[in-house]
Amino acid sequence: MNRVLRLQVPIRIAAAASAVGYEEFRGPLGEKFDFHDDSDRFGESTFERAEGEIGHIALNLALKKAGLSHTEIDLLFAGDLQNQCVASSGGLLSFGIPYIGLYGACSTLGEGLFSAALALSGATALSRVAVVTTSHNSAAERQFRLPLEYGGQRTPTAQWTATAGGAFLLDREKQGVLITHVMAGRILDYGIRDPANMGAAMAPAAADSILTYLEKTRTAPEDYDAIVTGDLGREGSALLSELLLKHSVRLNNHSDCGSMLYYEKKQDSHAGGSGCGCSAAVLAAHFLPLLQGGALRRMLLIPTGALMSPSSIAQGGSIAGIAPVVCLEVL
Amino acid sequence: MNRVLRLQVPIRIAAAASAVGYEEFRGPLGEKFDFHDDSDRFGESTFERAEGEIGHIALNLALKKAGLSHTEIDLLFAGDLQNQCVASSGGLLSFGIPYIGLYGACSTLGEGLFSAALALSGATALSRVAVVTTSHNSAAERQFRLPLEYGGQRTPTAQWTATAGGAFLLDREKQGVLITHVMAGRILDYGIRDPANMGAAMAPAAADSILTYLEKTRTAPEDYDAIVTGDLGREGSALLSELLLKHSVRLNNHSDCGSMLYYEKKQDSHAGGSGCGCSAAVLAAHFLPLLQGGALRRMLLIPTGALMSPSSIAQGGSIAGIAPVVCLEVL
Repeated sequence: MNRVLRLQVPIRIAAAASAVGYEEFRGPLGEKFDFHDDSDRFGESTFERAEGEIGHIALNLALKKAGLSHTEIDLLFAGDLQNQCVASSGGLLSFGIPYIGLYGACSTLGEGLFSAALALSGATALSRVAVVTTSHNSAAERQFRLPLEYGGQRTPTAQWTATAGGAFLLDREKQGVLITHVMAGRILDYGIRDPANMGAAMAPAAADSILTYLEKTRTAPEDYDAIVTGDLGREGSALLSELLLKHSVRLNNHSDCGSMLYYEKKQDSHAGGSGCGCSAAVLAAHFLPLLQGGALRRMLLIPTGALMSPSSIAQGGSIAGIAPVVCLEVL
Repeated sequence: MNRVLRLQVPIRIAAAASAVGYEEFRGPLGEKFDFHDDSDRFGESTFERAEGEIGHIALNLALKKAGLSHTEIDLLFAGDLQNQCVASSGGLLSFGIPYIGLYGACSTLGEGLFSAALALSGATALSRVAVVTTSHNSAAERQFRLPLEYGGQRTPTAQWTATAGGAFLLDREKQGVLITHVMAGRILDYGIRDPANMGAAMAPAAADSILTYLEKTRTAPEDYDAIVTGDLGREGSALLSELLLKHSVRLNNHSDCGSMLYYEKKQDSHAGGSGCGCSAAVLAAHFLPLLQGGALRRMLLIPTGALMSPSSIAQGGSIAGIAPVVCLEVL
């Protein structure tokens, strides 16, 4: 089984943009996002439609940064957390770009960058491919957990679904921030049954992916300027460290997008942020500029996903995790 | 915008297998399916988990036909209709194959073949890629429409979600049934709001994809031995004919997997079958053997999807359609 795929032609992230809601703008990275809406509504009448609009705005801003029209994008990979991914299909419909829908829970950005990079490698007729992922706190909370009006107390391990999204335009140019390697994740189920502890469900998959990636590429953590997980949060990040230590691997350069998005105490964000839009917005607004500016030369991005549904939980099912890997380098 | 992608190296469908439930086995194609379970339970305690088992059985059977172990499959694209695609992630977890989840409603098979073919084209390190899609009538009906115990009367345009699944193993061998061209679909919304008339929601997307594909490849319907839509059903197929006739295109070689799966009167199937597993099982059990046997040399497969969720319908949203295209040829 071949796990790590070295791209024959590295794929460039030509442009990216982010859009976020109120809490994300108030957080430590607030000023870095391209767009925010304090109302969390983004001009729409429902939170579900608002999530679609987040993706729409992010893709429009990425196109603007690149000086491109939507008609110059040949293919779009997109996904979100809503049932049947209607935020993506509804919000991005009007672009008219050929569309492939993805579902990898909060790891969807990883699936998108993986699929888009392979598509550009495999089909020279494709010039540019876009990846868009989104999430919305209010849409997700009432779908996965409880009615918003209920105002239920959250447990310390609970994460806060980010009202956020990111859009990425990929092409085959050879200079800039390049995707050089990708690896799909394996689904791992460690029997976690608490939907308010997704960090624990995802940490084993993240550990498995990091260990496999390092082994297959014969690299060490120190070979990367940053190893960035998607949204393990504080709970999941601590578990990741524990799991890696059992294999004598210590990450001195680990960051987690979910742990970076909110102030821990001031925003009462418990274990941190999550959602398909979390790693997308943090990559677009924080890590890509660091790569572009030369502060980082080589990083691993490992978006993490908790694979479950309200009905699978109600039926006593456990929550599996998955964690694809994307290697970004500046050349 | 480049739409039709001609694969630089055609990708072979090396093996395929299907698994179905009671109604599908009673239908006109019944004897052709590799596996059926009269109980619709597939050994599981819930219909939701049964759907996962359908995919598991189909992939196991496809591996057996090809004489391969699951460890020889490098990548798996899979999807279903359940919220958060838990049938795929849960049912296929134990294989341990690196996994990318897809969501394209009933068009998911098209997204899967599209993505798998491009991945094999783009990464020579990949030797074999699998595609699995499933659906289950009882899981889908109670998720999308009404409790099963309610026994509500169905309208004439309603389709019957197939309890079915198919698995496909793809590689780069040059002889056999090959995928030579793929085209992703555009999302089209014609304002249909009736979840019991998905044929009407999907027909415009199917017409758009067929017209675009024929135009871009400068081919005519007669250049194909069969043009096969996924699951427009009888209602959607009639609308497709109408829409194509407006462009002076007449298909004399059109079949629809949804219209083929059940006896119209004897099984009271109304407008026909639907679901991610419908086109997958019919392709695996009916069309692939026709291609392998030489009765068909070149066909277009156009799986069709209706993009909606129970909450988007409840909030007054309309149902968009999508229809990717896969060209299969025997060389």
